Amino acid sequence: MADPRFFQCAGPLGLGRIAEIAGAEIDDSRAGDADAERPFEDVAPLDTAGPRDIAFLDNRRYLPAFGSSSAGACIVAAEHAARAPEGMILLVTATPYTAYARVAAAFYPNPQTPAGVHPTALVDPSARIGADAHVGAFATVGARAELGDGAVVHDHCSIGSGVVVGAGTEIMSHASLSHCLIGRHCLIHAGARIGNRGFGFALDPKGYVDVPQLGRVLVEDGVEIGANVTIDRGAGPDTFIGAGSKIDNLVQLGHNVSLGRGCVLVAQSGVAGSSKLEDFVMIGAQGGVGGHLTMHKGSRLAGKSGLMTDVPAGETVGGLPAMPLRDYFRLVAMWKRQLKDAGKKK
Amino acid sequence: MADPRFFQCAGPLGLGRIAEIAGAEIDDSRAGDADAERPFEDVAPLDTAGPRDIAFLDNRRYLPAFGSSSAGACIVAAEHAARAPEGMILLVTATPYTAYARVAAAFYPNPQTPAGVHPTALVDPSARIGADAHVGAFATVGARAELGDGAVVHDHCSIGSGVVVGAGTEIMSHASLSHCLIGRHCLIHAGARIGNRGFGFALDPKGYVDVPQLGRVLVEDGVEIGANVTIDRGAGPDTFIGAGSKIDNLVQLGHNVSLGRGCVLVAQSGVAGSSKLEDFVMIGAQGGVGGHLTMHKGSRLAGKSGLMTDVPAGETVGGLPAMPLRDYFRLVAMWKRQLKDAGKKK
Amino acid sequence: MADPRFFQCAGPLGLGRIAEIAGAEIDDSRAGDADAERPFEDVAPLDTAGPRDIAFLDNRRYLPAFGSSSAGACIVAAEHAARAPEGMILLVTATPYTAYARVAAAFYPNPQTPAGVHPTALVDPSARIGADAHVGAFATVGARAELGDGAVVHDHCSIGSGVVVGAGTEIMSHASLSHCLIGRHCLIHAGARIGNRGFGFALDPKGYVDVPQLGRVLVEDGVEIGANVTIDRGAGPDTFIGAGSKIDNLVQLGHNVSLGRGCVLVAQSGVAGSSKLEDFVMIGAQGGVGGHLTMHKGSRLAGKSGLMTDVPAGETVGGLPAMPLRDYFRLVAMWKRQLKDAGKKK
Repeated sequence: MADPRFFQCAGPLGLGRIAEIAGAEIDDSRAGDADAERPFEDVAPLDTAGPRDIAFLDNRRYLPAFGSSSAGACIVAAEHAARAPEGMILLVTATPYTAYARVAAAFYPNPQTPAGVHPTALVDPSARIGADAHVGAFATVGARAELGDGAVVHDHCSIGSGVVVGAGTEIMSHASLSHCLIGRHCLIHAGARIGNRGFGFALDPKGYVDVPQLGRVLVEDGVEIGANVTIDRGAGPDTFIGAGSKIDNLVQLGHNVSLGRGCVLVAQSGVAGSSKLEDFVMIGAQGGVGGHLTMHKGSRLAGKSGLMTDVPAGETVGGLPAMPLRDYFRLVAMWKRQLKDAGKKK
Repeated sequence: MADPRFFQCAGPLGLGRIAEIAGAEIDDSRAGDADAERPFEDVAPLDTAGPRDIAFLDNRRYLPAFGSSSAGACIVAAEHAARAPEGMILLVTATPYTAYARVAAAFYPNPQTPAGVHPTALVDPSARIGADAHVGAFATVGARAELGDGAVVHDHCSIGSGVVVGAGTEIMSHASLSHCLIGRHCLIHAGARIGNRGFGFALDPKGYVDVPQLGRVLVEDGVEIGANVTIDRGAGPDTFIGAGSKIDNLVQLGHNVSLGRGCVLVAQSGVAGSSKLEDFVMIGAQGGVGGHLTMHKGSRLAGKSGLMTDVPAGETVGGLPAMPLRDYFRLVAMWKRQLKDAGKKK
Repeated sequence: MADPRFFQCAGPLGLGRIAEIAGAEIDDSRAGDADAERPFEDVAPLDTAGPRDIAFLDNRRYLPAFGSSSAGACIVAAEHAARAPEGMILLVTATPYTAYARVAAAFYPNPQTPAGVHPTALVDPSARIGADAHVGAFATVGARAELGDGAVVHDHCSIGSGVVVGAGTEIMSHASLSHCLIGRHCLIHAGARIGNRGFGFALDPKGYVDVPQLGRVLVEDGVEIGANVTIDRGAGPDTFIGAGSKIDNLVQLGHNVSLGRGCVLVAQSGVAGSSKLEDFVMIGAQGGVGGHLTMHKGSRLAGKSGLMTDVPAGETVGGLPAMPLRDYFRLVAMWKRQLKDAGKKK
């Protein structure tokens, strides 16, 4: 059970209701009509779940744990049903992990932050605060900024002049936003820096001359931005993050970068200035994309890889420099053979 | 035009004044004496500029956009003048990007932060605040700290005891400074951490023993330090950043690192303890410099590369481990040939 | 001498007392009984130390500096004693760097932060603040949080509801902690983000579905966590940091990561979700560990390397992808030979 100091469980929930939330079928061979009302207290991992818990099986590597689990019920794909221990009720679905996500969210709904502006917060009189919005302790909201209905700005945040935060968006503590328009239902984690002056300067015999950075950061709806992420505003064009994109901790996006919908950037990756990632592009952890490149729709860069060229739609690339991933794996295999051959010669 | 929520345009400016600011010549074949007074409203990219906008051409890849631009005037190198469309006035200079930087800064001067200490700021009575300096909301300034004339410390900053901030330096929100002396006209971005205890400890059978870190961070004039950067103070010697250096977001500098003048460190790069970068050294994004190394004057490390040896003056190195960049490119070409050959054998 | 603006020297100390703190023997051939009372003012590097300073020699590369040093006394290993200049007193020990750490800490003890809650801090009435604990300016401490005796929470920190901070732990400015239990005598640097919602979501035709992250971050005693580090809480299990581990700046730990005792993670390294590092594992700067891997006891990953497989106990691996370090060095040597051969053929 999740630590009650940090999480509040909304259980128990009845099996029928859980199946409905999961979008799953109750396996009739293992449950009767009466079971629909049977209460479950919590979600739990296969190995610690008890008779009043809901577990799930998604990854085949946990099949042994599934076979010996004491969970009262389990969310599972049809193909694994036969491996269930006796007495376990099965909630069968083609997408067990998504179903688990929905059930877990029913047991542990996001805590509601109470509406209102904390007495220590500083909200400029010209700012507009939506209905039921929250502004936390020591937060600042600048002139003409706008917070949508139900937006939550946690303690110590800095919302700059003119910044727009969409309805239902939540901004964790210590984030600072300037020169940006943020969509609805986004989640911005602690310490994220959005709208910084980009790294733009001209070389000159007397030193570097700063180039004014006159663009913004535009973030569409449903975007998640990780802790201590840095996103620079555009130099003239805008920096752009498409709807539903997921950006992990400590990621860097340079000025004028454009992300399509549903992009996923894993921790510590970076995209240099003016590069464009089309819809559903993925970058692995610590991956780096050079400047002025395009990764076409659905393409992927493996973790720790460095990209110096455009990537065609759907292609997966990796290595340093990045090449088609199958070539990179062939290259690594070749290195190993060469090392082995060199060893024999001695 | 830049979003007026975030940027205030100081236009219009007359063509003659603009040419003066740019340090450019007005091409006589395309403009008459009367044009000197002709007003321009704004700067704009080639593809969106209109007859009352100033554009610029720096990168050859934008020559087609130049040829079809409706910009009233364009800052350009002499060699490209013949490609200009009819009716476009040309401001000719050998350094169009620097000239544009100066013109853009004239249209969009840095906003002036009003002088004064915000009523919520906490300034120790023993601190010295220079004339026209600004201390923002919820900022703290410790005992005996000094802010020079016109220094700007934005909201939520923490300026530790004894820290010196030079005249005209601007520190964005949420930065924390301790054990450091910062020069004049520097720009420190949001969330930068300067003067942290370095990563210094001795191995001991009973565990790690912390070694007191008794140095400082010394930052010369005109340095830019990016968002969420971390710079540790020296262990005994000081950590040092030479005048005019540019440090991008999420960069890490270990204790005792020394940077010369005009160094450029791109985002997410790092320099390990006690390494020395001489004047005008450049490190690409996500590059890493090992400890106790020297990169001599004007040398460069390519992005994502890992340096394990000293680099001679003027040399460019790259790869993992870093080698002269031409060798690295030859190596990559060799890998590709080997892969191709292996493919044929099958 | 350390800058008195930032450091307060507790000297002078007598030679006998210094030897005791160092756990070192005074070399009788160079000092008499009277010397035990001889006062020393400070610690200093070999090249700047004077007759009233204590220096140390740890790294052979400083043997020339040792031979010509004017230090009054030097902490040194027996094997180097013969190289000492005339008149220098020697404090002989098998572990000079550890001994120096202890002596330096005696000259420069950690400054004591005065106990008490700053009038601007916001401490929830249900929080428990231990004896002699300190809560700094603009810090927030949430409902039911607990600070142990002598814990120090600096300015602008955010301590979330239910968070436990052990006795004697110090948290530098701007850190934010949620969903975590922190041990005793830890040091958490500025801007660290601990307990963030992990990067957990399920793919779904309609978009990504967030998976509730129901675990915590558990940090044992004596752990150091660097500036702007990000540590996500567990997804169900906890994220775990074993006693005495040292985590440098800008490191990322994903959800469910588990670190044993005494692990060392150098700056900008990262560990992906659910990976396990056993006791005394080390990761070099910018190194990356993939998800669901195990690094067994005492194993090490070289800087900038990317790990895709488990590592046996005691093994050192490096490269991209990481392999036994000796193989990686052989591989690099092979590349250099191949390049040379290719050059000859031309």
